[in-house]
Amino acid sequence: MADTKRRIAVDAMGGDHGPSVVVPGAVAGAQEQHIDLTLVGIPADIEAALKGVDRKDVDIAIVEATETIGMDEHPAQAVRRKRKNSINLAIQEVAEGRAAGMVSAGNSGAVMAAALMLVGRIPGIERPAIATYVPTAKARSLILDLGAVTDPKPSNMVQFARMGQVYAERVLELSHPTVGLLSNGEEPTKGNQLVQQVYPMLAAAEDINFIGNVEGKDVAMGAVDIVVTDGFTGNVLLKTAEGVITMLTDTLRREFTATLPRKLAALVLRPAFRSMRTSLDYSVIGGAPLLGVNGVVIISHGRSNALAIANAVGVAVRSDDHDLAGGIRERISLTPATPPATPDAPVAASSV
Amino acid sequence: MADTKRRIAVDAMGGDHGPSVVVPGAVAGAQEQHIDLTLVGIPADIEAALKGVDRKDVDIAIVEATETIGMDEHPAQAVRRKRKNSINLAIQEVAEGRAAGMVSAGNSGAVMAAALMLVGRIPGIERPAIATYVPTAKARSLILDLGAVTDPKPSNMVQFARMGQVYAERVLELSHPTVGLLSNGEEPTKGNQLVQQVYPMLAAAEDINFIGNVEGKDVAMGAVDIVVTDGFTGNVLLKTAEGVITMLTDTLRREFTATLPRKLAALVLRPAFRSMRTSLDYSVIGGAPLLGVNGVVIISHGRSNALAIANAVGVAVRSDDHDLAGGIRERISLTPATPPATPDAPVAASSV
Repeated sequence: MADTKRRIAVDAMGGDHGPSVVVPGAVAGAQEQHIDLTLVGIPADIEAALKGVDRKDVDIAIVEATETIGMDEHPAQAVRRKRKNSINLAIQEVAEGRAAGMVSAGNSGAVMAAALMLVGRIPGIERPAIATYVPTAKARSLILDLGAVTDPKPSNMVQFARMGQVYAERVLELSHPTVGLLSNGEEPTKGNQLVQQVYPMLAAAEDINFIGNVEGKDVAMGAVDIVVTDGFTGNVLLKTAEGVITMLTDTLRREFTATLPRKLAALVLRPAFRSMRTSLDYSVIGGAPLLGVNGVVIISHGRSNALAIANAVGVAVRSDDHDLAGGIRERISLTPATPPATPDAPVAASSV
Repeated sequence: MADTKRRIAVDAMGGDHGPSVVVPGAVAGAQEQHIDLTLVGIPADIEAALKGVDRKDVDIAIVEATETIGMDEHPAQAVRRKRKNSINLAIQEVAEGRAAGMVSAGNSGAVMAAALMLVGRIPGIERPAIATYVPTAKARSLILDLGAVTDPKPSNMVQFARMGQVYAERVLELSHPTVGLLSNGEEPTKGNQLVQQVYPMLAAAEDINFIGNVEGKDVAMGAVDIVVTDGFTGNVLLKTAEGVITMLTDTLRREFTATLPRKLAALVLRPAFRSMRTSLDYSVIGGAPLLGVNGVVIISHGRSNALAIANAVGVAVRSDDHDLAGGIRERISLTPATPPATPDAPVAASSV
């Protein structure tokens, strides 16, 4: 950890639970990370949420927002019309150098729109991507994009692979991380039209350790370090995994409390369950960096609990420690501009 | 079950394990369903696989195929060039009325291509879809498409909803089954461009009980009876769920055998595990019908074990019992042709 105290800005109004969950989570995260905190939002709400919270060793500044953006508002319009909303102002803290990074569990589209407007894209990056790592049977894999770009161009996805490499090398400390392209089959001929266009581009990129297509099951098995996909499919994959985990753990809980002998047996196994649940709990990861923008912008799940927010603060600190944005700037400056996909590239017109 | 003995044709050469798994599975399925069997493939391989198999009460006919189609062959080319392959000949049994349905665990693209060529589409159906039901926290949900059409047009997906309704009503015996559109958020504004075009079309269709967008987690929770999606995303969703289930059960097995007390406790819980595993095992479902073609065509997982093949034979029998193809023919004839999506429909150009 750094000796000089850094400051992370947190959108106190974000998430399904608002300040009552975000504020204590942010303070706990700041204590763990030995940093100071700027809480952005409606001061009275923040003050109320701070009551009774142990804030030892954390200097807390409050930046007043007079507006908030709802989860169902049109992102680009909202960040332009509501200039004094908590997301914009938290990113402004980063843009103007007062904070080393920001965290929001609010409208993720709005976080992205505000980041593009206020800190901007890294030169050469066409579209930023949301990246997170997930637990797998082997270790962890990084997945991107998770929803920043629902209809990417092929060249966007090649950049996702490069940004993912920087993340995997710097934060996950992997050397030569492998890259897989999410598809509906392993064969190079499989995929929708987008995937069939991206495949040869990844295969041709000498700086990318591309191992081919991966299927949904391969992701859980940890077949690759980095999974590249469009934001729509990535979002579906992540939420499907979440849903299946919830369904399974709920089913097991019900089965294991059905009879007294089972209850007793389950008691013995409780530590095993706890370790499994912890390794799979998204709140342990906490936040997903928006890669490709000029600053540390961390997007947290709308359903984040206090632990998730605390850990998102940790993700912000590590993203800054490892200078993710600088790494991406460097990597992209070293690679030639991606050639546009040949218009007459042999893309199968049909899936048959 | 019917009094007169029906016959199901099975592609004996399909699947990762070939005749040694498919043949005993098919015979077991035929016994359970009280039907007769036509095994299509290389006779010597079939005869070898039949050795020692109890074939009591099942009349087995063998149809000779001189060629097979590999999992990585180009489907449309393979079914046209290799006319005497086991997939084509099994579908031919259906096309010419000698079998009430067919099952293949082979190259699914080839099964679809052969079905289109040999039994053809139901009038009015633009593209067939592969549908399967999956266990959810509540009951079961039907998902389609799972890979027949990786880049559907919006109107294809409206037809998927209607074909799904027929399946849910006839096979799952649900009245007014609900339909959800798989997306990256619940709000009507969420989705990739395709989903944003399909949403208003489903909302406007008076014969479809459309409840809006559903996310990956909602599918596992059983939020809707029918999940409509493109074949690429549906395939990723299904395989991700499979991968997560495998990962979780492997982790639990490891944790539960780590110490002697845990092993003993796990012994008590074994029935609970078994019931959970059974409810989640894809082989219990066995096969996914190709909806929209003029006949019963069941696609099984490439990794199918004998139980999965036996159950796929059951799916074929039930699809015939409930006259799925007839139901779809009737439903589509009652609905007006889907108007093409208005070219200037207000589709958000960006996901922000």
